Amino acid sequence: PKATVARLSLYLRQLEVLERRDETTVSSQRLGSAVNVTDAQVRKDLAFFGQFGYPGIGYKVVELRESLREVLGTNRTWRLALVGIGNLGRALLGYSGFAGRGFEIVALFDRDPSVVGQMIYGLTVYDMADVQTVAPRLGVQMAVLAVPGPSAESVAHQLSCAGIEGILNFAPIPLTLPSKVSVVSVDLGLQLEQLAFQIRQRPTPNDDLP
Amino acid sequence: PKATVARLSLYLRQLEVLERRDETTVSSQRLGSAVNVTDAQVRKDLAFFGQFGYPGIGYKVVELRESLREVLGTNRTWRLALVGIGNLGRALLGYSGFAGRGFEIVALFDRDPSVVGQMIYGLTVYDMADVQTVAPRLGVQMAVLAVPGPSAESVAHQLSCAGIEGILNFAPIPLTLPSKVSVVSVDLGLQLEQLAFQIRQRPTPNDDLP
Repeated sequence: PKATVARLSLYLRQLEVLERRDETTVSSQRLGSAVNVTDAQVRKDLAFFGQFGYPGIGYKVVELRESLREVLGTNRTWRLALVGIGNLGRALLGYSGFAGRGFEIVALFDRDPSVVGQMIYGLTVYDMADVQTVAPRLGVQMAVLAVPGPSAESVAHQLSCAGIEGILNFAPIPLTLPSKVSVVSVDLGLQLEQLAFQIRQRPTPNDDLP
Repeated sequence: PKATVARLSLYLRQLEVLERRDETTVSSQRLGSAVNVTDAQVRKDLAFFGQFGYPGIGYKVVELRESLREVLGTNRTWRLALVGIGNLGRALLGYSGFAGRGFEIVALFDRDPSVVGQMIYGLTVYDMADVQTVAPRLGVQMAVLAVPGPSAESVAHQLSCAGIEGILNFAPIPLTLPSKVSVVSVDLGLQLEQLAFQIRQRPTPNDDLP
């Protein structure tokens, strides 16, 4: 269940915050309120993946953090290729949110001859035409796709042929790929729609401003 | 319910696809299968916001598309400020996924003196120090926050004081803001975790590669 898995990530974030504060245990109520769900929902979500709580104690912060990383598969390092070295690609290279989450960008790809061969943040930009040899050699398992919409589908197919198992897609189009490739799309238009909905639900004095 | 509202956006995408193909009606089954939910779920989600279907016909594509835009609040144009004109900000300026979704970037803000005053894609970069006068004058309602993590919180507070009602946050930190400001965070680390989970659920011959 997708929503449950998304909440695991949120619980994990919260456990990391608690760990930094040197807290050793947490109740399902407290964990839930931090991510805006009930304690019953927390218990139900976690029970789906195992038996993590201790009666009268709650959860042990470090232990549950470790267990959730294991469930999510981020207790290991995933080797990523970043494909498309435009503004978005460069922004993602500098993005600090991947660090410490088990995701390491190990290869850059582009097809623009003026970019191929450059070194950026210590990484070489490879020619997309060589992805089938370079990606397996570097042990790349996932790709972050930051190319324009019109090229996304064909580039995704090249990645699929190069043995990439998962794609984080930033192009604002849905990808049609073989089922052996997992795709998570980041649709920024959709996120803005959710924000618009939230704003409209709140009756505020500013509601009718231009 | 957040998950329901997220699905409305997906239904809307699908209706727009159908409209481009000149289809005039759609069943809840077909609408559901396109976004991977059951027809019962579609009916339940839509019933939450009104009575949209016609017995024996299903939904009228254009009519339901219009109704969903109204529910989401995107049947009007939202005026956005883009805050932080680094690589990510520039990438978002060129991002085609906002176009036609009712979101117009009308103002750019940064605090770097070497960037303030520049024209980018026909828009002037204003000094963040002037946000309280410039944002209301330009009728800005939402902001896309593309600044580094350490500055995000204080910049978000400036935006809140400038009357901004909603923030799409790209900084990999949670924002603590007055409740009158809605926040949707795009946590790319979380999206990668979801991808890692999906890949691990699929037993493939590649599962044990380095």
